[in-house]
Amino acid sequence: MLPLSTCWDTMTPNKSHWRRWGRNLEQWAYRGLDQHLRVGITGLSGAGKTAFLTSLVHQLLHAEPQHLPMWQALSDGRLLGVQRQSQPDLALLPFDYDNAIAGLCANPPQWPPSTRGLSEIRLALRFAPAGGLKRQLIDHLTLYLDLVDYPGEWLLDLPMLNLEFADWSRQQWQMLSAPPWNETTGAWLAEVEQLSDEAGIEPLAAQYGSLLGELRQSLAATYLQPGRALLPAELAGTPILAFFPLSPQRLEQHDDPLVAVLRSRYDAYCEQVVKPFYRKHFARFDRQVVLVDTLGALDKGHAQITQMADAIQAIQQSFHYGPGSLLRRLFRPRIDKLLFAAGKADHITVDQHANLLSLTDSLMGQSGRLARFSGSKVETMVLSAIRASQQGQVDRGGLIPVIRGVDMAQQAVTRFPGEVPSQLPEPSFWQQQGFEFGRLAPPQLGSVQAPLPHMRMDHLIEWMLGDKM
Amino acid sequence: MLPLSTCWDTMTPNKSHWRRWGRNLEQWAYRGLDQHLRVGITGLSGAGKTAFLTSLVHQLLHAEPQHLPMWQALSDGRLLGVQRQSQPDLALLPFDYDNAIAGLCANPPQWPPSTRGLSEIRLALRFAPAGGLKRQLIDHLTLYLDLVDYPGEWLLDLPMLNLEFADWSRQQWQMLSAPPWNETTGAWLAEVEQLSDEAGIEPLAAQYGSLLGELRQSLAATYLQPGRALLPAELAGTPILAFFPLSPQRLEQHDDPLVAVLRSRYDAYCEQVVKPFYRKHFARFDRQVVLVDTLGALDKGHAQITQMADAIQAIQQSFHYGPGSLLRRLFRPRIDKLLFAAGKADHITVDQHANLLSLTDSLMGQSGRLARFSGSKVETMVLSAIRASQQGQVDRGGLIPVIRGVDMAQQAVTRFPGEVPSQLPEPSFWQQQGFEFGRLAPPQLGSVQAPLPHMRMDHLIEWMLGDKM
Repeated sequence: MLPLSTCWDTMTPNKSHWRRWGRNLEQWAYRGLDQHLRVGITGLSGAGKTAFLTSLVHQLLHAEPQHLPMWQALSDGRLLGVQRQSQPDLALLPFDYDNAIAGLCANPPQWPPSTRGLSEIRLALRFAPAGGLKRQLIDHLTLYLDLVDYPGEWLLDLPMLNLEFADWSRQQWQMLSAPPWNETTGAWLAEVEQLSDEAGIEPLAAQYGSLLGELRQSLAATYLQPGRALLPAELAGTPILAFFPLSPQRLEQHDDPLVAVLRSRYDAYCEQVVKPFYRKHFARFDRQVVLVDTLGALDKGHAQITQMADAIQAIQQSFHYGPGSLLRRLFRPRIDKLLFAAGKADHITVDQHANLLSLTDSLMGQSGRLARFSGSKVETMVLSAIRASQQGQVDRGGLIPVIRGVDMAQQAVTRFPGEVPSQLPEPSFWQQQGFEFGRLAPPQLGSVQAPLPHMRMDHLIEWMLGDKM
Repeated sequence: MLPLSTCWDTMTPNKSHWRRWGRNLEQWAYRGLDQHLRVGITGLSGAGKTAFLTSLVHQLLHAEPQHLPMWQALSDGRLLGVQRQSQPDLALLPFDYDNAIAGLCANPPQWPPSTRGLSEIRLALRFAPAGGLKRQLIDHLTLYLDLVDYPGEWLLDLPMLNLEFADWSRQQWQMLSAPPWNETTGAWLAEVEQLSDEAGIEPLAAQYGSLLGELRQSLAATYLQPGRALLPAELAGTPILAFFPLSPQRLEQHDDPLVAVLRSRYDAYCEQVVKPFYRKHFARFDRQVVLVDTLGALDKGHAQITQMADAIQAIQQSFHYGPGSLLRRLFRPRIDKLLFAAGKADHITVDQHANLLSLTDSLMGQSGRLARFSGSKVETMVLSAIRASQQGQVDRGGLIPVIRGVDMAQQAVTRFPGEVPSQLPEPSFWQQQGFEFGRLAPPQLGSVQAPLPHMRMDHLIEWMLGDKM
């Protein structure tokens, strides 16, 4: 532990002094040269948002140059300290960092429980300016960093804003009636065809929500709308969520009153649920990290990884806001940097990282690693937020690279996970070769202050904060 | 069952025909002479909001002149039918009428479960105009009636909009430290005095919420702020609810950073919770019913009924909006009629109803039954939404009036509940005489269409709708 984190960390004995000093700091926020950065963290369910955010906060609070070598301001010795602060939006759930860390310090250590909505945490980073005139005038500056996590499924609702109910309905009906989904959805589709009575809408809507959950569970389906049907939170039981697609035949009956009821709910969902999210939250982000569970999808099969690619490409639409686009007209987003991060890189051997990066790029439908949307600069990265394995080698008539860790049943394992393809593979890939991707238990964190092992979180921090410090 | 309700009730066999007709009706809403009326239904926890709203909807849907003699439009034969319609605010919970009725039809019958937030139901009433030119031109009109129930505790937050945190805090601290509350709150108050650290705020705030719950439970305390600490719903766990009063000594330490933290949360609560309720909901009501459980409070004791009187008087503040008042400036409310209804009148003998009315008036701090606020006309009424008893007489050397019903353990009981005082009585009342007010089980409702027994719901309907039909 360096002096800087021992002297300006909330865990130090002389707490109240620094708290008071921190609060004075807060009053200086937005003043003159202090800066403010709001970063969105998202990913589809299971991508590891909570573990990522826990690690990011921990790395920042307990920053040590030898543990985060690529973070320039830290290795320059310009970081003076990092402190947690009160969150700015009081009506949001606070990100439960303490609970997540307590789980990692438990015996056996636990992965943090996943969150089900939007949460927020604020850090203040005090640093010395890099040089020049600024450095001569000021001995330190403060960067206020707000980290906000939210379900990636919410971004999948964006295309609904561009679609009338009838068009959305046709699109969804087609997806639901095609194999393999129709094995799960067949009975429900038939019931919708029989629907003749407004009182039948609520039960069919409830079944539609469960059906989307089943498709996600059993077929790893990801591109499911409306996103809130999967995580309704405070909207549970309200009519605004009680809609679903109708068959193309049904939609042609223009005087069918049930079409009108479902259309009005669809419209209300777009206006009162989707738009407010973009307006209140998305439009306030300066930067955005999208976590992508490429390895998890690769492990599951061809249909699953193809669906995830569709979902990732749909998510990218939220960052296409050139002049004149609907997004820009409606919400004026201002995200200047966008990162797609393929996580859980500790579950494969390091020699496969380049392939994982290339595969993630190919899922995104990008030819090169660096693209540029109107507005945001896009990068992809491979990382492990909380590293649960060590790299090793075993001799099998030649050294082959392996990973060593502890599986979820707390058994030590040595594993050769297999080769990661560099492009979206043909279906035959899953027949020909194995790919072993069993989940590993988190590493034991001896104490709250102990370094949390990771892979490339320093690259990520440099990407996120480098130009602001 | 009269022809009018048999022919235009949602329960009739030829459903789809009338549904379609009803939907056409809806398109005519707000057109020309059709009218729209939005009525708020509130009351402190336990006042019987759900039973009241269930009965009101049932009486309207199954209206029969002999069952609702005081409803003028109905006895004139001008009511042509009543129908449920889709609720206008899709993001609100629908009032669960079907479930409440199912409970009353169960064996044994169940009181409807209490609601914990805001819910809504819309009815369309089709009627023939009363006379004159209108009658010659139009054969029918439609009145759209939106009924919205919400916790009365939310109205108790209104005074907070007029108070700075320091003033609110002093007021609350005084109440919490006075007997008999201080027996419950003493330990918590001492801990707040010791609070030295921002990390201590969250646990003390959580305890404050439980403490308010305990005060309500054990001391029947009603005037508790903030109202959402008791029913947090979607705000559970957010910092906006994590505030509480500090001692006057503490408030004088102007540079105490904890005072600043609590003040900012108090201010955010007023801006982001209290004001939006008044703006989005309260300001849209045309009429308001406040249910008052005078008998329940009388049964509990002197301190409890005095506290309820305080709460009722505080609730009345929400309806004082003369020119220049804060309420009018902020929200432009438009409630033109306000009714305080003392419910559960079936739990006493009819000869005591006049006293119950007079006692309720005295709790409200009013000299006469009819007052006039700037804006709204106020009335009080005694009623029973769902009548659970019959009146009778027994010979005890002279006939005395009794009630007969079934208690909550499903035992038949004959009871002389006692005399209701006509004014808020002295503490000695509770030593001198008994007042028996055990809760009765609801009557068995043979079928969904069967008349639901009540007392004066027809007066209430005439008060609510008479001038609009």
